[in-house]
Amino acid sequence: MGMVTTPELKAGERIDQLYSQDVQIIQSPEVFAFSLDAVLLADFAKLPSRQSSQTVDLCAGNGAVGLFMSHKTRGQIAEVEIQPRLADMARRSVQLNALTSQMTVYEGDLAQVNQWIPKDSADVVTCNPPYFADLPDSQKNPNSYLAIARHEIKTDLATVVATTSGLLKMNGKAYFVHRPDRLLQLLDLMAANRLAPKRIRLVHPKPGKEANMVLVEAIKDGKPGGLRFLAPLTVYDQAGDYTPEVKALLYGTD
Amino acid sequence: MGMVTTPELKAGERIDQLYSQDVQIIQSPEVFAFSLDAVLLADFAKLPSRQSSQTVDLCAGNGAVGLFMSHKTRGQIAEVEIQPRLADMARRSVQLNALTSQMTVYEGDLAQVNQWIPKDSADVVTCNPPYFADLPDSQKNPNSYLAIARHEIKTDLATVVATTSGLLKMNGKAYFVHRPDRLLQLLDLMAANRLAPKRIRLVHPKPGKEANMVLVEAIKDGKPGGLRFLAPLTVYDQAGDYTPEVKALLYGTD
Repeated sequence: MGMVTTPELKAGERIDQLYSQDVQIIQSPEVFAFSLDAVLLADFAKLPSRQSSQTVDLCAGNGAVGLFMSHKTRGQIAEVEIQPRLADMARRSVQLNALTSQMTVYEGDLAQVNQWIPKDSADVVTCNPPYFADLPDSQKNPNSYLAIARHEIKTDLATVVATTSGLLKMNGKAYFVHRPDRLLQLLDLMAANRLAPKRIRLVHPKPGKEANMVLVEAIKDGKPGGLRFLAPLTVYDQAGDYTPEVKALLYGTD
Repeated sequence: MGMVTTPELKAGERIDQLYSQDVQIIQSPEVFAFSLDAVLLADFAKLPSRQSSQTVDLCAGNGAVGLFMSHKTRGQIAEVEIQPRLADMARRSVQLNALTSQMTVYEGDLAQVNQWIPKDSADVVTCNPPYFADLPDSQKNPNSYLAIARHEIKTDLATVVATTSGLLKMNGKAYFVHRPDRLLQLLDLMAANRLAPKRIRLVHPKPGKEANMVLVEAIKDGKPGGLRFLAPLTVYDQAGDYTPEVKALLYGTD
């Protein structure tokens, strides 16, 4: 564990807590706040527990996915985020949780990640990428922090998948969360980048509703075949309350 | 409606009923009996109701899928089955249900289907293909009827998908049921054969269990993108009873 220093909060920021894991995270509704996607991706990912392992989270935002995975491993977790304001929040959250000896935040373009982390060195790469293509006619949030997090302005899925594969060791694991209508493109890009999909979990907002999120696990240079679709996750029950599984992920089971 | 003639049953055959649709079907445990897959595929497929429409069911077996879809359209339904014994059962079931003016059973290899049905003429093609690759070391049923229905002995997925696409009009719809571990191959073959997947439904045997079946809808020459994952279907509840949706499909809602 690193030294605990209580970081300063900047204007508009607050400290939120993921109670299930006793993790505190600096957020700002005007800049970036993690959503359920980050919690689900961190839950879905399997990390090797050994101290020598290296996990990398790309498109890290305010560091939520890495922070939520930190209890899963004694190894190193690197966070890569292109927006200085968000990387700064992530860095201060790492301090706040006394995780400076386990977690490192790199500020910059994920396409340049090998300046910090060598090729073929990561055991696990996770990514909650921008969900929406940056089409000329796409409606973007006028807030540029949120627009960059949601739209493929600074990166795109092809770059994310190629970078992920480049970082991974042979048999290393990639984890993505995305929208179901991008799954085919994601699968095509994985096939073109030596990533064999192995487990998929669909996330449905309510019983009887179409999936609005998909979690994918792939293995670098994994044998083709053997793709499994796990039991789906449903977020809310018919009454509009969180289902027991989601409650446990957010608030813990105690 | 065609003339109703009560067909003769052969040794080992019995008449089963899909109560939800009041359809009778000739089966034999030793030769072929439809399974839930056929009921789900017939339910999943959307047929144009108009009389001029043409639907084709490939790998038709004893005709279950076509019979179960017959109430959905006033159009023609063709059944293509390579095994003479099964095609004969299908033909007698068509008679038994007085559907001879709507349904035609063609006996032969689906790769030769254009001897009966022209290219680019079908509105809908459905197929419940053999699920298992015919690998040199694969355990096959010693009963050759069942082995051919389950293993890719007389056809394979590449031929099924290419034939399906060839039969369909532009904007015609293809419906497949398969095992989840073959979905990637199915998607690749669809992409190579002008079929754009649009709706996918996973079928899980029980709550909390992985999917063991997948239903796929694709549109010939459909625009890429827009893939949707419907609410999953769960077959049995925790107590081992059929869920209400499956009960309704099998027994009707009355």
